[in-house]
Amino acid sequence: MKRFTDLAEFTREQVLELVALARRLETQPDPHALAGKVLGLLFMNPSLRTLASFQAGMARLGGDSLVITPGQSTWQFETRDGAVMTGAAAEHIREGLPVLSSYCDALGIRAFAAGEDLEDDLADRRFNAMAALVDRPLINLESAINHPCQALADWKTLDELPGSGRRKFVLSWVSHPKALPLAVPAATVHMAAMRGMDVVVLRPEGYALPKAIMDKARSAAVASGGSVAETADRAEALAGAHVVYAKEWGSTRNYGDEAADQAQRRSLKHWCLRNDWLTDAADDCRVMHCLPVRRNSAIADEVLDGPRSLVLRQAYNRMPAQMAVLYRLLKS
Amino acid sequence: MKRFTDLAEFTREQVLELVALARRLETQPDPHALAGKVLGLLFMNPSLRTLASFQAGMARLGGDSLVITPGQSTWQFETRDGAVMTGAAAEHIREGLPVLSSYCDALGIRAFAAGEDLEDDLADRRFNAMAALVDRPLINLESAINHPCQALADWKTLDELPGSGRRKFVLSWVSHPKALPLAVPAATVHMAAMRGMDVVVLRPEGYALPKAIMDKARSAAVASGGSVAETADRAEALAGAHVVYAKEWGSTRNYGDEAADQAQRRSLKHWCLRNDWLTDAADDCRVMHCLPVRRNSAIADEVLDGPRSLVLRQAYNRMPAQMAVLYRLLKS
Amino acid sequence: MKRFTDLAEFTREQVLELVALARRLETQPDPHALAGKVLGLLFMNPSLRTLASFQAGMARLGGDSLVITPGQSTWQFETRDGAVMTGAAAEHIREGLPVLSSYCDALGIRAFAAGEDLEDDLADRRFNAMAALVDRPLINLESAINHPCQALADWKTLDELPGSGRRKFVLSWVSHPKALPLAVPAATVHMAAMRGMDVVVLRPEGYALPKAIMDKARSAAVASGGSVAETADRAEALAGAHVVYAKEWGSTRNYGDEAADQAQRRSLKHWCLRNDWLTDAADDCRVMHCLPVRRNSAIADEVLDGPRSLVLRQAYNRMPAQMAVLYRLLKS
Repeated sequence: MKRFTDLAEFTREQVLELVALARRLETQPDPHALAGKVLGLLFMNPSLRTLASFQAGMARLGGDSLVITPGQSTWQFETRDGAVMTGAAAEHIREGLPVLSSYCDALGIRAFAAGEDLEDDLADRRFNAMAALVDRPLINLESAINHPCQALADWKTLDELPGSGRRKFVLSWVSHPKALPLAVPAATVHMAAMRGMDVVVLRPEGYALPKAIMDKARSAAVASGGSVAETADRAEALAGAHVVYAKEWGSTRNYGDEAADQAQRRSLKHWCLRNDWLTDAADDCRVMHCLPVRRNSAIADEVLDGPRSLVLRQAYNRMPAQMAVLYRLLKS
Repeated sequence: MKRFTDLAEFTREQVLELVALARRLETQPDPHALAGKVLGLLFMNPSLRTLASFQAGMARLGGDSLVITPGQSTWQFETRDGAVMTGAAAEHIREGLPVLSSYCDALGIRAFAAGEDLEDDLADRRFNAMAALVDRPLINLESAINHPCQALADWKTLDELPGSGRRKFVLSWVSHPKALPLAVPAATVHMAAMRGMDVVVLRPEGYALPKAIMDKARSAAVASGGSVAETADRAEALAGAHVVYAKEWGSTRNYGDEAADQAQRRSLKHWCLRNDWLTDAADDCRVMHCLPVRRNSAIADEVLDGPRSLVLRQAYNRMPAQMAVLYRLLKS
Repeated sequence: MKRFTDLAEFTREQVLELVALARRLETQPDPHALAGKVLGLLFMNPSLRTLASFQAGMARLGGDSLVITPGQSTWQFETRDGAVMTGAAAEHIREGLPVLSSYCDALGIRAFAAGEDLEDDLADRRFNAMAALVDRPLINLESAINHPCQALADWKTLDELPGSGRRKFVLSWVSHPKALPLAVPAATVHMAAMRGMDVVVLRPEGYALPKAIMDKARSAAVASGGSVAETADRAEALAGAHVVYAKEWGSTRNYGDEAADQAQRRSLKHWCLRNDWLTDAADDCRVMHCLPVRRNSAIADEVLDGPRSLVLRQAYNRMPAQMAVLYRLLKS
C-alpha cells in the first residue's frame, strides 16, 4: 500500500481486510510496530478528531508524529503555479511539500475545498497538486471531495451494528449556518454503496450531489450489489431506514455564491434532524454524523443524546481505522 | 487513583506519598513506566509551565502526549447546554470531550474562570461540566477555582526548605494590571493549611477571599493542626513570616466588574512585593509565586533575582510532581 | 560539546567530524541513542524546516521534543531588563527561559533580529540575553545574526557535490518584498570561507554586508586558505561560479528604515535569479537557497525547477546535520 487517498482505489476485499486489521489492533496492540517512524501531519484547515486520533494512533504503534499548520507556527503557503510571490505567502508548496515529506516516513494532508469553482473542487485540484509533490506514503486527511479516513471508520462502525441482509442507508442533508464542502457527503455515499447498502440521498432542491459524485457511488453499487437513489421527499426517504447519516453541505446550484446559498438556506432551517423524523424508520434505526456537529441546527439534542446516536463511536473508530492504514503504509 | 482534580480529595498521607514518589522519580527515573500510554492535554487558555512540564514529564516516563487548543488548531468549543449552534463555535464539548478522551489514556483540562459570576466560578461549573463528559483518568490543569498540580509542586517545594516546627505562611495579594482568577489563591491557602502551616491571607479591602475558599482551608487546618487567619494589615501579617506567597487576584467585592476593579486597583500599585516588606519576616523567609509573574508590578526585580526567591524551584517541581500523578493514574 | 550557537566556535576539523557523523546517522540509524531525552524548541518566530526537522530528527534518535510558541499557545514574553510589566507580555524571559530549560535536556531558541538597530543585531543582543538564562545544552535555531544549523546543513550539501580543487562560491543578494535579517548571509559567507572556498559577495549598492560580518568571514578564510571578496558587478561575480547562493536581506545603508529600504528595492526587482545569470558560470554551477524562497521574486521558477537547484537537498540535510548536533550534545 503506497497511499490512502480514496476508498475507491481499493477493492471491497482490501477494505474488509483493513477493517479486520483495525479490529485486531484494538484487541491485540502492537506497540512497537512503527518504532522509529515519523508521520508528518499538514493541516491547511482546523481539525480535532483527525489531529488527535492520528497522533494517538501513531503513538500507540510506537511511532512519532509532527504537526504543521501553515499560517500559525509556520509560513503561509502559496499554491498557484507561476505565482510572483510578493504577497503574504512566504513559501510555495513546491518547496514546502517535498521538504516536509523528506523528513517523514509518511505524510498526511488536510486541504479543504476552496468552495469557489465546483469543477476545481470535484477534480480535487488543490489536494492533487499537493499530493503530486510528495514522494512518500500519503494519507488524505480530508480534501475538497474526499475523506477516506472518515469513510473507513464509518465502515467499521456499520460493521459493528447488529442485523444483516440488505440495509437502507439514508444520507440526509441538514441545516448549517454556512456552506460546507462536499467531501464527507461524497465519501459517505460512495462508502455505503461500496459496502452494498441501499443508499438514498435525501436533500432539498438546489442541494443535489453533483453527477460525478453520484456516478462514482452508482458504479460502486453495481460492483457490490447495492443501489443508489436520490430524492427531496423526506417521508419516502426515511421510511424503513436502518441508518440515517446527517450531513451539511453547501448549495450545488449556487456553488461558491455564499449570499445566494444563505438566502436559500434561510427557508431550510427545519432540516434539523429530530426524533420525529424517524417515526417510520426501522425500529433499530441509528443516526450517524462525522462531527463536528452544530447542535440544534443540524441535529437536535434529543437525537445526539439519545440511544440512536452513533456519532461518538464513529469518532472513536477513526483511531483504530487509521492505525490499520498506518500499519499497512509503514510497517516494514 | 482515578482523577487528580482537587488536593482536598486526598488525605494528607496520600499527598505525602505523592510527594515521596515525585522525589523518587527524580533520582530513579522509570523511563518505560508509561510506554504506549497517551495523555491528551486540552488547553482552553494559555500555558507555559503546564504545557511544557506535562509533555516533558510524560516523555520521561516513556509515554506520549498530544495538545489540543480550541480556536487555534481546532474548532472553537460551545459549552452551553441546549445551545442552538449557529455562531462561531463549531463543536460542542458534549462531543469534543468524549471524543478526545476516547483516543487517550488520560486527559488534562485547563479551563480558567469566566470571571463573570462568582457563584459559578466558586462551584467550578465550567470545569465540572467538561469533567463530567470524560470517562478517563482526569487531571485539572487549572480550573476556575483550583490548581492542584501547582499545589502539589508547591508542597514539594516547601518540603525542601530547611527548618521544622510551626511555620508561618503568608499568602499576600499583589498588584496586577488586570483581574486574575481565584484558582491559585484558593489552591494555595488550602494546600498550606492542609500541610499544617499557620496561614495568614494578607489582602487589601475588597479582595477578601470568598467564604467558601476560607472555610475549605479552615477545615483542612483543623485536620492538620494548622491555622488560617486573614488581615489587611501588612506589618502584622509579615512579622515572623517563614514563607510569603505572592499572588494577584481580582476584586471579590466587584467580581466580574473590571472597570470598578481597575479603579480600585489604581490605588493599590504599592502592593508590589519588595525587599523592605520582609524586614520583620524570619531571617530565612522565602518568597513564592506560581508564575507567570509581572515583574515590578507584582514582585520587584530585587526580590525575584535575590536569594529569597523560590519561583524557579516551584516551576521546576511541577514536572516531578506531575510525573508522580501520571504514574499513579496510568501505571498498570 | 555544550552548545551549538555559532560555527565559528568550532575548528574546521570539528565541523568535518559533525558532517561525517551526520552522514553516518543517515546510513546507520541509531534509533535509541537519545531515549528518555527531551528537547525543548522555543520559537519566537515562524518556522517550517527547523520545526519539522528537529522534531523528526529527535524522534529518529529515540528522543522527544516539545514546542513552545510565545503568544500562540503560551504567554507573550517580555525581554527588557527592569521592565514594569503592565502591558501585554505576561512572562519575562528571566523566568520563562530557566523554567523551560529546567524541564528539558537541551533547548533550541529561534529569535530573529528586531531589525531596528544594526549594532544590537550584529551583537546578537536578543539571542544572547536569552541564551544567558539557559544552563542546558543550547542550539541556535536562527538568531539575529547567525544560523549555524543552516550553515552545517549547507556544508554537508556542498560536500556532496562532485569536483574538487578551489571552488568559487557566490553569495548573491536577490529581491524580496520586505527587508529580511542578516542571519543567513552572515552564516553563509562565514561557512563558505571556513570551508576554504573563494567567496564573492554580490550585492547592489546599499546592501553591503557590515564590516563585522565580512571581517569574521575573512579571518575564517585566512585559516582555511580560502578568500573573501565583494562586488556589485554581477557579470564579474558570476563568471566561473561553481555555486550561487541566493539570499534576500534588508538594506544595510538604511537599516531599520523599511520605507527607505522599500524605495531602494523598487529599482532592484530585476535581482531575481534567472538561468541567463549563469551563462558564464561553471558548467556544473549549482544554485542554493535556505528557503523559504519567494518564487519569481527572489529566484525564477525556471531555476528552482531546473537541474541546477540544490534547495530541496539543503533542506533535507537540515535533519541529518541536526541529528549529529543533538547526538553530540545529548548522547551520554
